[in-house]
Amino acid sequence: MTVVSVAHALAGKIPEGGEVTVRGWVRTVRGSAGLAFVNVSDGSGFAPIQVVATDTLSNFEEIKSLTPSCSVIATGTLVKSQGKGQSFEIQAQTLEVVGWVEDPLTYPIQPKPMSPEFLREVAHLRPRTNLFGAVTRIRDCLSKAVHRYFHENGFYWISTPIITTSDAEGAGQMFRVSTLDMANLPRTGNGEIDFSRDFFGKETFLTVSGQLNVEAYCLALSKVYTFGPTFRAENSHTTRHLAEFWMVEPEIAFADLAEDARVAEEFLKYLFRAVLDERADDMAFIAERVQKDAITRLESFVNAPFERIEYSDAITLLQKSGKKFDYPVEWGLDLQTEHERWLTEEHVGRPVVVTNYPEHIKAFYMRLNDDGRTVAAMDVLAPGIGEIIGGSQREERLDVLDARMAQFGLDPEHYQWYRDFRRYGSVPHAGFGLGFERLVVYVCGLSNIRDAIPYPRAPGSAEF
Amino acid sequence: MTVVSVAHALAGKIPEGGEVTVRGWVRTVRGSAGLAFVNVSDGSGFAPIQVVATDTLSNFEEIKSLTPSCSVIATGTLVKSQGKGQSFEIQAQTLEVVGWVEDPLTYPIQPKPMSPEFLREVAHLRPRTNLFGAVTRIRDCLSKAVHRYFHENGFYWISTPIITTSDAEGAGQMFRVSTLDMANLPRTGNGEIDFSRDFFGKETFLTVSGQLNVEAYCLALSKVYTFGPTFRAENSHTTRHLAEFWMVEPEIAFADLAEDARVAEEFLKYLFRAVLDERADDMAFIAERVQKDAITRLESFVNAPFERIEYSDAITLLQKSGKKFDYPVEWGLDLQTEHERWLTEEHVGRPVVVTNYPEHIKAFYMRLNDDGRTVAAMDVLAPGIGEIIGGSQREERLDVLDARMAQFGLDPEHYQWYRDFRRYGSVPHAGFGLGFERLVVYVCGLSNIRDAIPYPRAPGSAEF
Repeated sequence: MTVVSVAHALAGKIPEGGEVTVRGWVRTVRGSAGLAFVNVSDGSGFAPIQVVATDTLSNFEEIKSLTPSCSVIATGTLVKSQGKGQSFEIQAQTLEVVGWVEDPLTYPIQPKPMSPEFLREVAHLRPRTNLFGAVTRIRDCLSKAVHRYFHENGFYWISTPIITTSDAEGAGQMFRVSTLDMANLPRTGNGEIDFSRDFFGKETFLTVSGQLNVEAYCLALSKVYTFGPTFRAENSHTTRHLAEFWMVEPEIAFADLAEDARVAEEFLKYLFRAVLDERADDMAFIAERVQKDAITRLESFVNAPFERIEYSDAITLLQKSGKKFDYPVEWGLDLQTEHERWLTEEHVGRPVVVTNYPEHIKAFYMRLNDDGRTVAAMDVLAPGIGEIIGGSQREERLDVLDARMAQFGLDPEHYQWYRDFRRYGSVPHAGFGLGFERLVVYVCGLSNIRDAIPYPRAPGSAEF
Repeated sequence: MTVVSVAHALAGKIPEGGEVTVRGWVRTVRGSAGLAFVNVSDGSGFAPIQVVATDTLSNFEEIKSLTPSCSVIATGTLVKSQGKGQSFEIQAQTLEVVGWVEDPLTYPIQPKPMSPEFLREVAHLRPRTNLFGAVTRIRDCLSKAVHRYFHENGFYWISTPIITTSDAEGAGQMFRVSTLDMANLPRTGNGEIDFSRDFFGKETFLTVSGQLNVEAYCLALSKVYTFGPTFRAENSHTTRHLAEFWMVEPEIAFADLAEDARVAEEFLKYLFRAVLDERADDMAFIAERVQKDAITRLESFVNAPFERIEYSDAITLLQKSGKKFDYPVEWGLDLQTEHERWLTEEHVGRPVVVTNYPEHIKAFYMRLNDDGRTVAAMDVLAPGIGEIIGGSQREERLDVLDARMAQFGLDPEHYQWYRDFRRYGSVPHAGFGLGFERLVVYVCGLSNIRDAIPYPRAPGSAEF
């Protein structure tokens, strides 16, 4: 017997009439006189394979009582299927039941429509559904494409610190990491918490971004990226925010903002092409059940050149649009999602890179333009979601960086290491950040970002 | 002008006599009458490229004053090099200085031997050294090979939760994650800390392992793996332990311990073959400067079949060895590094998989063998390091699992979700864990695990 995955058995690469074994979980069972049709999934691809059992099998009675999620091992002959929508099926010589489902009537995953809200409550079982199987495989495909794109383009992966002493951007609330006994906190002479007695001998937090750290490697290895978890303790119980999420952050030496935008465009197109090529099965399901234009949207994204618009011109366009927005449009204010979506969806009709934002609404490390009032920042906006990538050229001039840090009220002492890169062989460099779950939400057409992570509200997870 | 990486320029794929531009940092400068030889590195590979500048260049005086780590852009003709040990060099038409080094005499990274201890104190600059450039590229190569091996073998990547409410193994001290104001902690009526007012409404920690969570995905997608950071708050200031480290944890449905060991062997060999094939330049440096047998050791690892030994037999062998060990050897006690190294280095002379350990020294989720006193656990031991992989078949029988949890004093209520996999279509399954930094230490011949992570003792990092 040759054990194969269901995806392999269905792919048409095994000679018809060959004997194979597949192992997995029952999706559905149908019966007719002396026959049972058992759909078996092992998650290797979207489609289950149909196993046909006849009453000549010694355990036929047992087979007829199978219910969804029972585990089985089927051995038999692979034959072309007569049925619609499936290429091959297995005529079983044996169909062994490995594990039963205790009380099938109360088993949470039933072969009927189930709401995402309900499935978030049984997140440890939801990978067995069509939707979350598809999301998981698409997420895997995207992550592999991230690493492959960077590998093919000469970038090295850097795992920047998760537990950190610094707030990378002065942005966002942070989670504290500590081993101090909270019931009995050590105090200094003047009554403050004595963090010198904490695990690391100082106050520590979960990182909000690996960018500043990865810059050190950029200024030695030229092309680098992080891909790891980041954390924001923002109490925003929206469908768009997570406390824990993965971020992709490339950093490129000798790059200006135009090169940064070029890489961002090439990178996103590479990712979407990978999904279209490698997960056609799952995307077909997404298009059928979740979002009708899921595939055509990615295809046109891949085929369209991104538009470039200066922030100042975007403001003018929005003001002249005649459209009524909830948030004010005015030079100096940040763009809101409604503005971003109008630009990319209604005005341009394809992805847009907005560049050169007012300096006071962006981070201290972004490079000051010659006009003195904008910085070399960019946001990539995509139809259907708004901002999907944010990036900038970094301030490589030490005197300008120092002035910016003073303006933002940052302590240069704390950033000596970051200043060092500007003291020792400074070069222009640029990079961007892509929220990985936001990408999954976009590709899979999900309406809640908690459906893009493996464990929302799940036992063992703190995410709610 | 065509901008190319130094690695590309040296690879011999560009026609000789072609005009190229390289960008990077000066490694060394040598001068002679009317000539300057400037070695430029951009980190794309181990070797720098030699740029030859003549006094016909308008900024020749400037070029002569270049010091290590100044950043430059060199444009010129690629020609075969006369010098030893380099394939090509660039005869410069222009050599632009982009960034100087402030006060070269006090610049921490000097072209001379520097101790790892010193370099850990300037970790943000150490990627500019030969050793840490090599370690970084090897680390990247290993991480890419991890993802590629699993992709080629049908495994999907799962990012399990970092912030968690559960202690995956009952093993190891955990870091607490909290946003409570420590100076002013909320209390319940009876004076205890009120974690219901914390960010997640309950007490939360950093994960020590993704294994239990990834099992849920295994029992739906059959072959899955995690590759992400894990945390142990153990106050062991040794050269072998980290508080924050990356772990690779595959999980395989329908696998027993023998299959688990087969995958572990194939996987490790795949990783080492990738390093030998793809990072020959960096490994040559490691063999020259760090560990003489670095390459031959990996080669014999890749070529040798792993030995299999039962724990009980290993105890007998150790007892009969005539060797004096610091720690006692007795059935029922765990193997120490000295025992592991004797087995793999002196007794067998190649990697060994030790299987079937006493049940009371291993975790509750490992499958109880029929003898009732051992579990289906394995450790993979390698010459030069000892244990490199630990794994097990998981207990898939609900009644046995419940008995084991009772024996370990674990609350079944807290593990209902984990019990669910045994109630609904349970199947035999197995997996293992590989500490990624330990792998880097082994491949690079490092003596301190802090040299295998990008940011020890660095600004922005809590690691000390």
